[in-house]
Amino acid sequence: MAQYDPSEVEMLVATANELADAARKQTLAHFRSATLRADSKRGADFDPVTQADRAAEQAMREILAHRRPNDSVVGEEFAATHGSSGVTWVIDPIDGTRAYLSGTPTWGVLIAVSDATGPLLGVIDQPYIGERFVGGFGRAWVEGPMGRADLACRPARPLDQATLFTTFPEIGTPEEEAAFARLKSRVRLTRYGMDCYAYALVAAGQIDLVVEAGLQPYDIHAPIAVIEAAGGVVTNWQGGPAHQGGQVIAAANRDVHAAALELLNG
Amino acid sequence: MAQYDPSEVEMLVATANELADAARKQTLAHFRSATLRADSKRGADFDPVTQADRAAEQAMREILAHRRPNDSVVGEEFAATHGSSGVTWVIDPIDGTRAYLSGTPTWGVLIAVSDATGPLLGVIDQPYIGERFVGGFGRAWVEGPMGRADLACRPARPLDQATLFTTFPEIGTPEEEAAFARLKSRVRLTRYGMDCYAYALVAAGQIDLVVEAGLQPYDIHAPIAVIEAAGGVVTNWQGGPAHQGGQVIAAANRDVHAAALELLNG
Repeated sequence: MAQYDPSEVEMLVATANELADAARKQTLAHFRSATLRADSKRGADFDPVTQADRAAEQAMREILAHRRPNDSVVGEEFAATHGSSGVTWVIDPIDGTRAYLSGTPTWGVLIAVSDATGPLLGVIDQPYIGERFVGGFGRAWVEGPMGRADLACRPARPLDQATLFTTFPEIGTPEEEAAFARLKSRVRLTRYGMDCYAYALVAAGQIDLVVEAGLQPYDIHAPIAVIEAAGGVVTNWQGGPAHQGGQVIAAANRDVHAAALELLNG
Repeated sequence: MAQYDPSEVEMLVATANELADAARKQTLAHFRSATLRADSKRGADFDPVTQADRAAEQAMREILAHRRPNDSVVGEEFAATHGSSGVTWVIDPIDGTRAYLSGTPTWGVLIAVSDATGPLLGVIDQPYIGERFVGGFGRAWVEGPMGRADLACRPARPLDQATLFTTFPEIGTPEEEAAFARLKSRVRLTRYGMDCYAYALVAAGQIDLVVEAGLQPYDIHAPIAVIEAAGGVVTNWQGGPAHQGGQVIAAANRDVHAAALELLNG
């Protein structure tokens, strides 16, 4: 990371925050109220999540075109653009569209700064709560309803005292479900339904594990950066880099990561 | 409800808000930070959720002893007290203790005013988000990050377009799981993990159904009042009153309630 001096890091963090602010505005414009009133005010084919998704990604891309014209951009909604800087912004304007459509405060805006080595800086923003988890370049913090605090993953504990999260009980293929079931049978508590918010909880020292399959790169770049900066470990189920998506395990520390990986592959 | 004139209703609402404010303070005092640092600062047997649960219920009981000395109080943590007014406060300082311990913003403080006819007024408060759903005596509203808004359950839609919530995939007995599976197979989307927040989402017009089993009375009194005031229906799985707990179905309207009940009993 030699090329990222402190002023460059500061500028990347400031730009990431600017993106998150813009996405917050666009996603909240359609959250709950639009869904609630869509039937009467708009046509039956009005899709608030698509509307919010696109408006938020567009707002973020406009900022990047202005502030970081030489960076690449990979987003969920529009085609990738390629710059010359070696830096790529990986953005998902609404991670957890089903959560968004159900009104739960567990979806999020994901923003990552990555290069050829993987994610360097990440933001997990929950606009409705007004809570932003940021991590990268060795620092991780949250700003939210209770002010600002540093993030630190929890220390190692035995698997039978660990808390495991995943979004759906239906993890993926039958083999993936069986692997998850082996792990689930050994932890103290398994909870569902948190989307990207579960990764934020690993970084915040609240839970031990998130295990998912079938992820896209833009689902996991930001969580990787936030969790690694908070002291945690994110890999694929084989223990290799996770930023290509697919099967992902996020762990609070190396010990619980190793114990969980063994069961997933057992 | 003849005995509840407007000034009495106003006083009950004000007292319920006062209780929720007090519980918000006590529950937030131990949320996340205490769990995070419990290992180092306190003994290994320190249990932040029990601490917060008791402190919050005690704070609410003190307010009631002062403001409503003739009412009865039923809470999760302490023995019931019996008054002469015919009014009972049914309180659960932390609904969703596992959510609380995991750091998710989906637990809540439940406060209900009930009499022999059932729940009259309810509060579902989410302290971390700063969001309060209130309903009773024909009115329902939310105050939260986006200001104040009236609550209204969504209109009827076919079951195959409905969203169903429950907290755990393991609903209860094998028979209860089978009943839930019949319903799940017919709705568009099933989501997990929201605890009492799912009932608030029914009242807010965001989802169609919540189905659970094994509830305690203090788990459901407040949701009943909020949802009924927002136009929804809450019963047990036989279609009778739900305020004794057990098997509960909360529905956005009579049509989706009837359709779901048929499958639960099919």
